[in-house]
Amino acid sequence: MKIIQSAKEIQQFAKNNKKDGKTIGFVPTMGYLHEGHLALAKQARKENDLVIMSIFVNPLQFGPNEDFDSYPRDVERDQELAKKVGVDLLFIPSLEEMYPKEATIQLTVTKRVQALCGRQRVGHFDGVATVLTKLFHLTLPDRAYFGMKDAQQVAVIEGFVSDMNFPLDIVGVETIREQDGLAKSSRNVYLNEQERREAPHLYGALLKGKEIIQSGERHANHIISVMTDYITTNTSSKIDYVEVLSYPELESIELLHGKIILAVASKFSSARLIDNIILTV
Amino acid sequence: MKIIQSAKEIQQFAKNNKKDGKTIGFVPTMGYLHEGHLALAKQARKENDLVIMSIFVNPLQFGPNEDFDSYPRDVERDQELAKKVGVDLLFIPSLEEMYPKEATIQLTVTKRVQALCGRQRVGHFDGVATVLTKLFHLTLPDRAYFGMKDAQQVAVIEGFVSDMNFPLDIVGVETIREQDGLAKSSRNVYLNEQERREAPHLYGALLKGKEIIQSGERHANHIISVMTDYITTNTSSKIDYVEVLSYPELESIELLHGKIILAVASKFSSARLIDNIILTV
Repeated sequence: MKIIQSAKEIQQFAKNNKKDGKTIGFVPTMGYLHEGHLALAKQARKENDLVIMSIFVNPLQFGPNEDFDSYPRDVERDQELAKKVGVDLLFIPSLEEMYPKEATIQLTVTKRVQALCGRQRVGHFDGVATVLTKLFHLTLPDRAYFGMKDAQQVAVIEGFVSDMNFPLDIVGVETIREQDGLAKSSRNVYLNEQERREAPHLYGALLKGKEIIQSGERHANHIISVMTDYITTNTSSKIDYVEVLSYPELESIELLHGKIILAVASKFSSARLIDNIILTV
Repeated sequence: MKIIQSAKEIQQFAKNNKKDGKTIGFVPTMGYLHEGHLALAKQARKENDLVIMSIFVNPLQFGPNEDFDSYPRDVERDQELAKKVGVDLLFIPSLEEMYPKEATIQLTVTKRVQALCGRQRVGHFDGVATVLTKLFHLTLPDRAYFGMKDAQQVAVIEGFVSDMNFPLDIVGVETIREQDGLAKSSRNVYLNEQERREAPHLYGALLKGKEIIQSGERHANHIISVMTDYITTNTSSKIDYVEVLSYPELESIELLHGKIILAVASKFSSARLIDNIILTV
């Protein structure tokens, strides 16, 4: 596995490989790899000649009160894991390499951000769009891989990739779950024993919502209320949101039709967990 | 010469050619081709395996009081001219093809726009950046060609191409002039006989500025004042601006150093003409 830190160098590497007719799969990460990232890399491995993974903790997507400085980093372990799942090239740029000078242009995501987690994270997706625009131009992927656990992120990325005609496909990879249904997350370790037993009920609430939709229910409000009850009955967590929206537009709907997302966020004592499912009615 | 109207089709065409190792030169235009455009295409022809030209009158870069509807169009003549200078592929998308739905992202050029023509054209360069981002992703050029006549446009484009790591080079092509020095422009036909005799003095003013700089003058204010006097003495036009700025940053400078631009805009009875020269002191 090759490691590159220079933007110029990785772009040249990607250009050369494209010229040779190779397809490139790209997995952007902020490092501290977990099973979710590795699932993305494994799928990229299957579908492309070459797999590039980036590790870059992007300051632009952190709010002033968020944890940029304390964001966990372990590049050595990341290298081992990336190698193990067949990554060909790891791109680990410095902050100066990615943002050498003040930008002359500002990207602002204007849709799909006033819902779910985006409502509280002003500017977060502008930072995501900026870093991905740069990374896409540096790695020239045919396909870029993102976890559906953060479905809003995928919706935002699909939006600007389509609007701006980026020459690549966005691949959303299904959420990986524990045997009891709990979505895998590095934050699960912060749950205490009782909370860990309750946490799968977030997914349970999503399945409950799905079930009543499949039985014919179409009123978003009713579905939200059933899911909310389910979470408050079965867990000690404090609900942040329970939403039923169109997907990928993430717009409020009264009556369900087409592709929709059921999404929840709830706070346990030391961990805020999110989960979602997407379905077509 | 091939003509393509579909975004998907031209992107596939560009991808296939890149895969075959071909280099692509791209000349974006709004059509109604004149000698300036053809000079760009001729240079692209010399430097690339394949030359793509686009013709698209981009509404996003017109202000509410500007002439989007009356902008001159003559696609048949354009096709003949493009073919004659060796364009391989003409991309002529419809409005719906370029902007099929409301965008989810907004590009805002935040630097290099508060000077020269940009000061009066709020949002103009946002529209330029948006359409070029899309066109670059559709045509996948190794090199894109722009006339230095609009030096501010080149500065803005170089800015966001560098900030966003686009995998291409921006080539600024020198302004083409009449024998008497007047910069070629479709607007020159609007000059009356006397104005046509006066108009080369705009370039004369730039040369005068250059001359005193080469003799050692370094104060921007003094140079501006000499150029202003030169224009008012030698023409009946009404000066819009005379500026001496750093290039490509387009920032005010008191004492000249490094790369700079001398730029003028002046209004004759029915035509506003612009001109500039760039030099290193």
